[in-house]
Amino acid sequence: MEKDPRKIISEMCQNFYSQGWVSGTGGGISIRRGDRIYMAPSGVEKEKIQPQDCFVVNLQGDVLEGPENEKLKLTECAPLFLSAFELRNAGAVLHSHSSNVVLMTMLARRLDEELSVLEFTQLEMIKGIIGHGYYDTFELPVVDNTARECDLTSSLRKAIERFPDTPAVAVRNHGIYVWGPDEVKAKTQAECIDFICEVYWKMRSAGIESHISAPPQTAALRS
Amino acid sequence: MEKDPRKIISEMCQNFYSQGWVSGTGGGISIRRGDRIYMAPSGVEKEKIQPQDCFVVNLQGDVLEGPENEKLKLTECAPLFLSAFELRNAGAVLHSHSSNVVLMTMLARRLDEELSVLEFTQLEMIKGIIGHGYYDTFELPVVDNTARECDLTSSLRKAIERFPDTPAVAVRNHGIYVWGPDEVKAKTQAECIDFICEVYWKMRSAGIESHISAPPQTAALRS
Amino acid sequence: MEKDPRKIISEMCQNFYSQGWVSGTGGGISIRRGDRIYMAPSGVEKEKIQPQDCFVVNLQGDVLEGPENEKLKLTECAPLFLSAFELRNAGAVLHSHSSNVVLMTMLARRLDEELSVLEFTQLEMIKGIIGHGYYDTFELPVVDNTARECDLTSSLRKAIERFPDTPAVAVRNHGIYVWGPDEVKAKTQAECIDFICEVYWKMRSAGIESHISAPPQTAALRS
Amino acid sequence: MEKDPRKIISEMCQNFYSQGWVSGTGGGISIRRGDRIYMAPSGVEKEKIQPQDCFVVNLQGDVLEGPENEKLKLTECAPLFLSAFELRNAGAVLHSHSSNVVLMTMLARRLDEELSVLEFTQLEMIKGIIGHGYYDTFELPVVDNTARECDLTSSLRKAIERFPDTPAVAVRNHGIYVWGPDEVKAKTQAECIDFICEVYWKMRSAGIESHISAPPQTAALRS
Repeated sequence: MEKDPRKIISEMCQNFYSQGWVSGTGGGISIRRGDRIYMAPSGVEKEKIQPQDCFVVNLQGDVLEGPENEKLKLTECAPLFLSAFELRNAGAVLHSHSSNVVLMTMLARRLDEELSVLEFTQLEMIKGIIGHGYYDTFELPVVDNTARECDLTSSLRKAIERFPDTPAVAVRNHGIYVWGPDEVKAKTQAECIDFICEVYWKMRSAGIESHISAPPQTAALRS
Repeated sequence: MEKDPRKIISEMCQNFYSQGWVSGTGGGISIRRGDRIYMAPSGVEKEKIQPQDCFVVNLQGDVLEGPENEKLKLTECAPLFLSAFELRNAGAVLHSHSSNVVLMTMLARRLDEELSVLEFTQLEMIKGIIGHGYYDTFELPVVDNTARECDLTSSLRKAIERFPDTPAVAVRNHGIYVWGPDEVKAKTQAECIDFICEVYWKMRSAGIESHISAPPQTAALRS
Repeated sequence: MEKDPRKIISEMCQNFYSQGWVSGTGGGISIRRGDRIYMAPSGVEKEKIQPQDCFVVNLQGDVLEGPENEKLKLTECAPLFLSAFELRNAGAVLHSHSSNVVLMTMLARRLDEELSVLEFTQLEMIKGIIGHGYYDTFELPVVDNTARECDLTSSLRKAIERFPDTPAVAVRNHGIYVWGPDEVKAKTQAECIDFICEVYWKMRSAGIESHISAPPQTAALRS
Repeated sequence: MEKDPRKIISEMCQNFYSQGWVSGTGGGISIRRGDRIYMAPSGVEKEKIQPQDCFVVNLQGDVLEGPENEKLKLTECAPLFLSAFELRNAGAVLHSHSSNVVLMTMLARRLDEELSVLEFTQLEMIKGIIGHGYYDTFELPVVDNTARECDLTSSLRKAIERFPDTPAVAVRNHGIYVWGPDEVKAKTQAECIDFICEVYWKMRSAGIESHISAPPQTAALRS
């Protein structure tokens, strides 16, 4: 029998807390099963969420089932989660406040008034990003943060459309949204991105300009 | 039935230990229920506190109930905790020795002989500080440390009064006192402050001058 | 009765996950018992591997027993693991994506088109590397990474042969393979190497040029 | 009934492992009860020590009781542990390979051919070092490392005698020995020293020259 998505959300939030992704009530995860989307509630300690605290909404964001505790609120991130479900047919979307990602967003190259980009290449962990190989450049879009979380929806949707190969959109000085075909893939890609950001940040802190070398083919052409 | 505050103290101290906030017997937490304030004992390994080790004091600091083990002592921080209960009507006050906070206190801008201030802005986690938005500046007062912990009381009270919007007062080269309407809020705000200090410290270590941009309105005025 | 190697693999992968060595499905471990080699499966969350998920292969890499779940795949690292079993008569081989090691590979001194080297000396933890003393130089070969993991086999084998005293080969921008006469030794040596890389990286980040002093004999000769 | 010191050793080693103090079989702890000293065995994974793995020796280091598993060996550190029991009447002595301490030993000021010193002041955690106040300078002696651990005994004893106020002696590029009147005090002082080293190292990495201010009395004299 398949495991209750509410229980999975509870366990994953504990894991995210121990990774430092959801401290201070930040972050969360949503899991889709058919037309039902299970969501962690807002503004609570994520490491203590119980299965019965979760919401179930449809793809339009209408609440189908609320938690037993009526004080719990649906997250303001709901439209952001729903965008990834809709535009990418995601099976799960997580939101993390990882400090590694937050720090890297500060180094993103600006593209226009609300969008920047981070480019990563030649780390093995990039192969963990669906559709990317070792010599590929993983382009991670970074949208500017807004005073209210729901106001991110428009720029996030634009970033998703402009960067069709990314499984994630970062938010400047804020965190990241990561999705995948299921919750395991969403988590493991978030771990890869976190690792990549940690390594790039530490390189920068140590004053290392570049770690890349020419790929084999290019090297052959040169010789 | 409501959970025994002594048990909550025991569990929260274990969490604080795993976050590195209360190593070496440092730090602790007090929780208020009506006129009764539950306090962790002093000078013991905080991760091993048992419910029966806690003190109960009134708002004047008189011991109402002592722990079973008569060797345990009331913390010297008691007057500091009581100040936040009295001046801010706090429901819980915690004291952490987080290294992220300690390091940041060294960078505080001095205001007068005993008071300095740290200013943080444009991090999503600032929204976790009660009463603060993303574009607001969170001013964290930092009082100078003293040879004896109880001698901090006067400057801490002054800082609380001078900075009416802060839910915390840091102590230079020492740590931080954080309070909230209840123990959950005190903890989650302490987590937000810790995250903010970690990010600012790492920015500084990497030589990043600023991560802020003009808020939307200002940008509009300029164009 | 000896413990089932499958259970050991499951437990060790949880340990590696908590150390940050196998996040995002990366890394793993293989254990040899006679002619049977037990291997963690590929592309799954390593912290959740169950004993029944493991493969058993022979020294040529032929699958003797597959996991109950037929969707699980043998790791692409298999030929790399097998090289250490064959060339060094290893009892266990682990593969880690430790960020400490990945960062240090960027500082390796290049020897030829596909091989570099890192040199470590005068850290107590070097005594944890089999065959090395405090004043010895531990030479850790670093091979260039390749687009496909199996393409590492040739350069890894060459590195093993060129550096007969190393219990490990690192892979640039990727991670490390570490082996030992049994799984405990493989793990403890991997821990020593991880510690050594952490310390060297932090020295470099803090701008410390050198921590070494002349060994006693040399000092005597000089005076 | 008092808890078996062997069980305490087993539990403390797990704690030390999670703090990163005893990875790769390094480090350990000895506890004294009257004329009997309980010691963790050598060269094994410290996080997996069982109570029955411990040795009992007398103050001269003669083995009174060996572990059930006859393959286990007494640690080469035994004479070092015994020195602190003898010269300081310690109730417990621990040995840690904390990377924070190892890094700081590289910055120690040399006093003579085998001895250096680190000086720490004006951190609240210094008050956790027995006999030290906030404005005191905690002098931590650092002896040079040797090829064999037992060869440290002479310089360690000299350092203990030359620095009568220290509860610890660090070993350059190696780690630290910390003692106290009992095992709890030894641990909590080790935690304070670790915290202090972490903070000083991060200050140095961020280029902060000094965090100290004149103590109140001095300030008064100046004005």
